[in-house]
Amino acid sequence: MTLIKFIEIMAILVGAFSGFIEARRKRMDLVGVFTVAFIAAFGGGTLRDILLDRRPLFWVIHQEYAILIFVLALVASPLIRTLRQIVSERLIVIADAVGLGLFSIAGTSAALDANMPIFIASMMGVITGIFGGVLRDIVCNEVPMVFRDGKPYAICAFLGNWMFLLMGKYGVEHDFALWSSALFISGLRLLTWKFDLRMGR
Amino acid sequence: MTLIKFIEIMAILVGAFSGFIEARRKRMDLVGVFTVAFIAAFGGGTLRDILLDRRPLFWVIHQEYAILIFVLALVASPLIRTLRQIVSERLIVIADAVGLGLFSIAGTSAALDANMPIFIASMMGVITGIFGGVLRDIVCNEVPMVFRDGKPYAICAFLGNWMFLLMGKYGVEHDFALWSSALFISGLRLLTWKFDLRMGR
Amino acid sequence: MTLIKFIEIMAILVGAFSGFIEARRKRMDLVGVFTVAFIAAFGGGTLRDILLDRRPLFWVIHQEYAILIFVLALVASPLIRTLRQIVSERLIVIADAVGLGLFSIAGTSAALDANMPIFIASMMGVITGIFGGVLRDIVCNEVPMVFRDGKPYAICAFLGNWMFLLMGKYGVEHDFALWSSALFISGLRLLTWKFDLRMGR
Repeated sequence: MTLIKFIEIMAILVGAFSGFIEARRKRMDLVGVFTVAFIAAFGGGTLRDILLDRRPLFWVIHQEYAILIFVLALVASPLIRTLRQIVSERLIVIADAVGLGLFSIAGTSAALDANMPIFIASMMGVITGIFGGVLRDIVCNEVPMVFRDGKPYAICAFLGNWMFLLMGKYGVEHDFALWSSALFISGLRLLTWKFDLRMGR
Repeated sequence: MTLIKFIEIMAILVGAFSGFIEARRKRMDLVGVFTVAFIAAFGGGTLRDILLDRRPLFWVIHQEYAILIFVLALVASPLIRTLRQIVSERLIVIADAVGLGLFSIAGTSAALDANMPIFIASMMGVITGIFGGVLRDIVCNEVPMVFRDGKPYAICAFLGNWMFLLMGKYGVEHDFALWSSALFISGLRLLTWKFDLRMGR
Repeated sequence: MTLIKFIEIMAILVGAFSGFIEARRKRMDLVGVFTVAFIAAFGGGTLRDILLDRRPLFWVIHQEYAILIFVLALVASPLIRTLRQIVSERLIVIADAVGLGLFSIAGTSAALDANMPIFIASMMGVITGIFGGVLRDIVCNEVPMVFRDGKPYAICAFLGNWMFLLMGKYGVEHDFALWSSALFISGLRLLTWKFDLRMGR
């Protein structure tokens, strides 16, 4: 398994995991737990692809991820209790930050491939990174967390997307731009988490 | 009028009716009553078609159904009171179960036609069957009923979709596979309703 | 700047402004304020374009509008306080009514161009006019205002769309039909507002 594949799976699992937790907190049944986890994991990329009119969708090509979440949902209830004991919050935040960086830059890059103008491309990257959580919260009948907790989560993605776009504009080698921007987002997210930075309201 | 057309109309009416009831419960006005009924009746198939990138949408080809719901919305308020007296809950559950079977298998079949992999096809079938109700509940600011009541509604659709997919894989004649799977879903749904079966949480 | 461009910008600003106010009321942060304003301004047209499978989306072609809302979101908090003092409610209602007329007819016209049947075209026009507000309210975890306040907002759009469709059917010159219908919607909306007309429930 390549490193990128491993990171991808980890990021999807973290997204799904956030869905498991919120669905359980809302006392949902198996159907709800699976659906919310699925939406949390794939909602951002799916919305981006619908807006860009890209098909087939990511989870259609990789049905193994949908099956993985389905199997996890079947065992989610005991799994969450166990995982919460084994896995530290630190590890979840790190995996989530890595996922945010990876998916945001992937989204920005996909938008550029679809000939989006530059500001729209940066927005599409943020949508890819955060709308899984937004749709998860809407289905769970909550005001989306990412819109109200004041933590600079989407801002990190936004800044990193612009770093990627500017590096592309000034001729930086594509792979280097991609990886360094994703790393920048993940690192910035972890820094703001470590120092508990907030935006003003 | 053919049998399939009759069932289709009944299933759409039952979907719309669930929308009328929830919209009235939320004290919505005419615009809300029509919109929620429309979403309840066509939301599942519309979401599936957007995910599969299929056009034109079902209700675009058959605008007579949209007009029917519009006319019903105009008279919904007295209609609901009268209907609740005339129509027994049993009849509503039966019509809804028939609709679930029919629309789920139609959704699975449409996904296969669009070359979806098999697990995704089974999910598309369930989405077609249940997301009308999910979107109805989201618009009405409720946690979707089908995600939290513990009744094996979506599960019935899921199992029937797999019956249909496996029959197709093993060469069973297409029309027979379609009708027997739809019947299986409707029957299973009615059985679980009769015996009030619940999933554990 | 042409008149149509000026009206377009005013209508988008009024939509965004409604998003600023609701997002602030929900105590959202910068990310939420921008996203909700964006959804309020462009949600209706975006949903219509997804249903019609039209691309590129309006705000993709005109990224300057997205940037404008982004800049406004950065200064939204003091802006809203100031604007509320400077701008009278009357002015907001007028700009909103003009926007409703313009966008509803534009939506109906776009649906006709996509060969929608006539009733569906009238619905697409209403969707364009009102679903920005509907999606704004859903994201803010509220039952959509336009579904429950009993004010004939969507009805005005619906009637004007039919005026436009019938004028087209009976050979009225296209531009005249377009402008007079948009004016009819705006005027009717302002009349119902002035006399505080309500629909029965």
